[in-house]
Amino acid sequence: MVKAVSFTLLSLATAISAVAALDPVGQFKRLGACPTLGCVFPPDNAEFLAGAHFDVRVEIHAENDAKPNTDYSLTIEKLKGTHKDNKNGPKAVDFSKWSKVKPNAQESWDFTYNKDAAAYWKFMDGDKNASTNVHVASTAWRHVQINEPGTYKVVLKYNNGKKTEAIWTVNPVQKRKAKNVILFIGDGMTTAMITAARLISKPHTSGKYTKHMHMDQFPVLGHIMTHSLDSLITDSANSASAYNTGHKSSAGALGVYPDSSINPFDDPKQELIAELLRRRSKKNGGAGGVGIVTTAEVQDATPAAVYAHTRNRDEKATIVDQMIHGANPVVADVILGGGGKYFHSKTGGKSLNGTDYYAAYSKERGYKVVNDRDALLNYKGKDPLLGVFHSTHMDVWMDRNVYKQNLKKNPTDPTGNGQSALNQPNLDEMVLKGLEVLDKRHRKEGWFMMAEAASVDKMMHPLDYDRALADLLELDNTIGKTKEWLKRNKLDKDTLILVTADHAHSFDVYGSVDTQYFNSFSDSEEEEKKNSVGTYENSGWPSYVDANGDGFPDNWDVRYTLAAGTAGFPSHREDFQININGTRVPAVISTTSHHHYEVYETNPVSDPHGINKGATMSAHEQVGVHSLQDVPIFASGPGANLFAGIQDNTEIFHKIAEVLGLGN
Amino acid sequence: MVKAVSFTLLSLATAISAVAALDPVGQFKRLGACPTLGCVFPPDNAEFLAGAHFDVRVEIHAENDAKPNTDYSLTIEKLKGTHKDNKNGPKAVDFSKWSKVKPNAQESWDFTYNKDAAAYWKFMDGDKNASTNVHVASTAWRHVQINEPGTYKVVLKYNNGKKTEAIWTVNPVQKRKAKNVILFIGDGMTTAMITAARLISKPHTSGKYTKHMHMDQFPVLGHIMTHSLDSLITDSANSASAYNTGHKSSAGALGVYPDSSINPFDDPKQELIAELLRRRSKKNGGAGGVGIVTTAEVQDATPAAVYAHTRNRDEKATIVDQMIHGANPVVADVILGGGGKYFHSKTGGKSLNGTDYYAAYSKERGYKVVNDRDALLNYKGKDPLLGVFHSTHMDVWMDRNVYKQNLKKNPTDPTGNGQSALNQPNLDEMVLKGLEVLDKRHRKEGWFMMAEAASVDKMMHPLDYDRALADLLELDNTIGKTKEWLKRNKLDKDTLILVTADHAHSFDVYGSVDTQYFNSFSDSEEEEKKNSVGTYENSGWPSYVDANGDGFPDNWDVRYTLAAGTAGFPSHREDFQININGTRVPAVISTTSHHHYEVYETNPVSDPHGINKGATMSAHEQVGVHSLQDVPIFASGPGANLFAGIQDNTEIFHKIAEVLGLGN
Repeated sequence: MVKAVSFTLLSLATAISAVAALDPVGQFKRLGACPTLGCVFPPDNAEFLAGAHFDVRVEIHAENDAKPNTDYSLTIEKLKGTHKDNKNGPKAVDFSKWSKVKPNAQESWDFTYNKDAAAYWKFMDGDKNASTNVHVASTAWRHVQINEPGTYKVVLKYNNGKKTEAIWTVNPVQKRKAKNVILFIGDGMTTAMITAARLISKPHTSGKYTKHMHMDQFPVLGHIMTHSLDSLITDSANSASAYNTGHKSSAGALGVYPDSSINPFDDPKQELIAELLRRRSKKNGGAGGVGIVTTAEVQDATPAAVYAHTRNRDEKATIVDQMIHGANPVVADVILGGGGKYFHSKTGGKSLNGTDYYAAYSKERGYKVVNDRDALLNYKGKDPLLGVFHSTHMDVWMDRNVYKQNLKKNPTDPTGNGQSALNQPNLDEMVLKGLEVLDKRHRKEGWFMMAEAASVDKMMHPLDYDRALADLLELDNTIGKTKEWLKRNKLDKDTLILVTADHAHSFDVYGSVDTQYFNSFSDSEEEEKKNSVGTYENSGWPSYVDANGDGFPDNWDVRYTLAAGTAGFPSHREDFQININGTRVPAVISTTSHHHYEVYETNPVSDPHGINKGATMSAHEQVGVHSLQDVPIFASGPGANLFAGIQDNTEIFHKIAEVLGLGN
Repeated sequence: MVKAVSFTLLSLATAISAVAALDPVGQFKRLGACPTLGCVFPPDNAEFLAGAHFDVRVEIHAENDAKPNTDYSLTIEKLKGTHKDNKNGPKAVDFSKWSKVKPNAQESWDFTYNKDAAAYWKFMDGDKNASTNVHVASTAWRHVQINEPGTYKVVLKYNNGKKTEAIWTVNPVQKRKAKNVILFIGDGMTTAMITAARLISKPHTSGKYTKHMHMDQFPVLGHIMTHSLDSLITDSANSASAYNTGHKSSAGALGVYPDSSINPFDDPKQELIAELLRRRSKKNGGAGGVGIVTTAEVQDATPAAVYAHTRNRDEKATIVDQMIHGANPVVADVILGGGGKYFHSKTGGKSLNGTDYYAAYSKERGYKVVNDRDALLNYKGKDPLLGVFHSTHMDVWMDRNVYKQNLKKNPTDPTGNGQSALNQPNLDEMVLKGLEVLDKRHRKEGWFMMAEAASVDKMMHPLDYDRALADLLELDNTIGKTKEWLKRNKLDKDTLILVTADHAHSFDVYGSVDTQYFNSFSDSEEEEKKNSVGTYENSGWPSYVDANGDGFPDNWDVRYTLAAGTAGFPSHREDFQININGTRVPAVISTTSHHHYEVYETNPVSDPHGINKGATMSAHEQVGVHSLQDVPIFASGPGANLFAGIQDNTEIFHKIAEVLGLGN
């Protein structure tokens, strides 16, 4: 928490909130950030940008045979300052009257949840009676906005005298500080991964580096707290959503607070950076450009968080539609990545209603569509650019550049022609082309680009550390080339560059491994194999060398490797050596389990001569999981100082909004 | 790496160094940072403060039956700038002539080492022929100093034409920026631990904190790279030594570069912050005060690094002697912690030559000696203060404050009276008393205090996460009280506060645990037990609450705990619950191993109903090990900005030296 002003407002809010809604303890909850039977979204402790649009929803819950009391009311009042002042302040007024927004008709629905682990695993094992039924009455107000900065108290009165209070803070619009912002996201990237990537790629003498990562050279460093709205561990959707909206959410949600209804598109929305930028006032610089670059599907959580609104990140076909047909569609100037199968209905295609979205983007919005690296690099136009290079997530750097034979295994062409996508661009090529297009289209107004190295996370999940670190290095090299490009195009002084992650994995390195010694033992000599791990002074230095200076080790299949591991993993084997034949698959589904739910066990053909590692969590988990630790943020350029020190993930939105002069 | 000037110099040094001595690959080395048969210490890429004292040693090695050629020479030349300039620069001159230091007589000795893991484990299992013999010829120059900033090339010529070159950089003395510096060290503390400690102690609403850690509120954040001189993983001695000297070293070394001789006191020394401060010129503020506070033994690696010089951190009896009888003894104004057994020769005493060092400190140097909390708090004098409160490491916060019955188990009184030390101060009490004494003795000249929360590390090693996090919280609360004290005493604007760690552990949290569900299963139902771990949205929130506002959870034995773990661990069981009866002991020595070396196996009485976790490293390792990741540094006060961004651990010395105006 760096901005003193934020601190004060938060403390004030806490002091004021007479019935401060601390987060409820326990693993399973009826509904996200709703500790009682009366729910208000946005919830207590929410922070807003003045003038940003948002929806409001209240829900009244009744469990089992009870019925929800449909007689409830919502009021709002602006707090003058302290609790004492408030006594003489304005009175609470009806929310509809105050907001001038007519609520939708009252709705009702039912849902079920599991009260705790005991109920959950009974439910998972087929006992439908284990769950608790909830009956809901609900009202929603759409497209609300608060223009006046300050602190507000919102009160839901329900069940004859019960109250749920929410304190909302509205931040003022700030003077614009930079023309452009680039937000690089290394999905799942932690400090430990950066340290390890540096170690295998940069030369050192007497234990000190003689070359550094590009990130290392950023002048400002911060840490970001990544908790969800309702859990200590976040997923990529709701953390990316926090960066784009300033509001926390729940796993799987993009640009909305999750309500309890089954409809994934009726949840209360929050306005996105891209939406705010598209409608920025002339005074603050006018409508800016938006660029989205990812090595994942362009509908995946992190890129979709830039332009989509849904409770369920898996609604990828609809997400493709939202980009051009949504309520206030973002229609980004640049969209580059994978995810072709949601654009067409040919082989493997899953587009919405069978629509050809390549054609729709092109005809309706004038996009130039490219589907391979050559077409991308050859594009010199000024039209908006849609580049889709793979049917799903793009292949990772290691397979794109080192073990290329792995690209040929599946029909991954983005057009659904049944071929393999053998001509995929690298991240740096996508980012530089994206910058070119943004510069051509919005040099005057400026722009916002989100560029994601998605497979740091996607390779950490299956414990494929080599592939994850290679994608991290690809990100770092891309940052270096981006800085050069900005300088060459005289934009370096106008552009804030942020490099961060959305959440962590518990990866770290605890020594080195002499793989020659490791491989000299038979599978039954596991204790001897483990003696190949050197710790402390016997960790020495690994064998990776970047002699050709391209920023990556020249050889990944070396004698001395890293003894790397995580804390939360499924049952698997570990041989500490590169998986040459493609991404690691640590665990496979058990065919002998007596449970109704999937149970995963060690994959016998993955690292078959490795040491055995028993799962540290439920066997229902197939791969490694996200972890708790704060993630780093590196900042360089105008406004960089705002990102120093410790901050919540929601503050990133407010700081980017400040830098770009968004709001009102 | 933050200071542009450092970057330039390093790059320059690399460019210049014709035979750049990259660190040798592999786990086992003949000698630290010496890739060839001719060694120079300080080695290539070393950085110095102008005017700081240091020793130089060269060694010529000959393996097996070969003899070292005793005909060798050392020269030095100052490099003007680029390599090209250098051609016209001054010629290399004989090192003795240039330094005006006469070398000691040539020495010779033998030592052995193991070439790799195969040789090492043969050796460990009793095969003395597995090792390689090395014969050494060596020369040392003592008490050298370089007053003129710049870049120097040192060349060792040996074996008829072989050369070892070292580029040395000498940094200029800077204008003093602050009166005082407090260096808080959370030994082994990482970002993940801070995140976890925050989670269990600070209230949050809708996933956002309404109170923060004191560290969180520091305006400047940096990361520190912690590699050893000769290995990717450091120990506490050589990392603390880097902070105090600006030079990296090897595991176990304090204030010296390790040579290959067996004598732990003849290794080439580096000058310490405390030594430089004691002889600071009048112009720069005069001789300042030195305070050392730790919850470990005052002879343990981190505190000893402030005042001692030895190749072997285990020479604790001599380290006690060095404080008052060393070459330029530091004679700190404040020394507070444990380690009583090295001060006396009574029950359990191991003092040097049986000397009563309590008496020696008191009589020879005027120390007030206190041995319990009451005596500490009652001291109002101005004499230097020695407070020793435990025979070895002080008990941890959890046992000092929550499970006090654990204090009674051993004869731990620091005076050797055979009793238990039941009246130990907390870290905040030691730090505040230390500040009082320093302020009384050196308000005018200013002072340097190193205060260590040692048992973050000491509890992480045995995987006792609760105790580690409690000691981290004790550190954070101490930081808060220190800031208040400084403000109250009008020293806040004159004092730089740094909070950092010396190395990492691979700890992270990957979810929560419903211990009630966990405990409902029998030991044989391990798969079901693992279902108690909730991940992502099912991680929810743990049950820890700090209702009394003392900065610690009110109850540590709760239903919903953290699913925490590490990557490098011995064979053990894990039940995710507080160890009420004292520090966890995860593994015990095997009585059935056929090896000559110790082999550790799961301790059957530690977490006896926990899930089984097989070792991820050699069974010769008894506890969890250090890890790779960069550690955070928080800075506040004059000069804080120097510590932003990424930096090497040796840079911390140079920045503190800059802030305190040390050198020359």
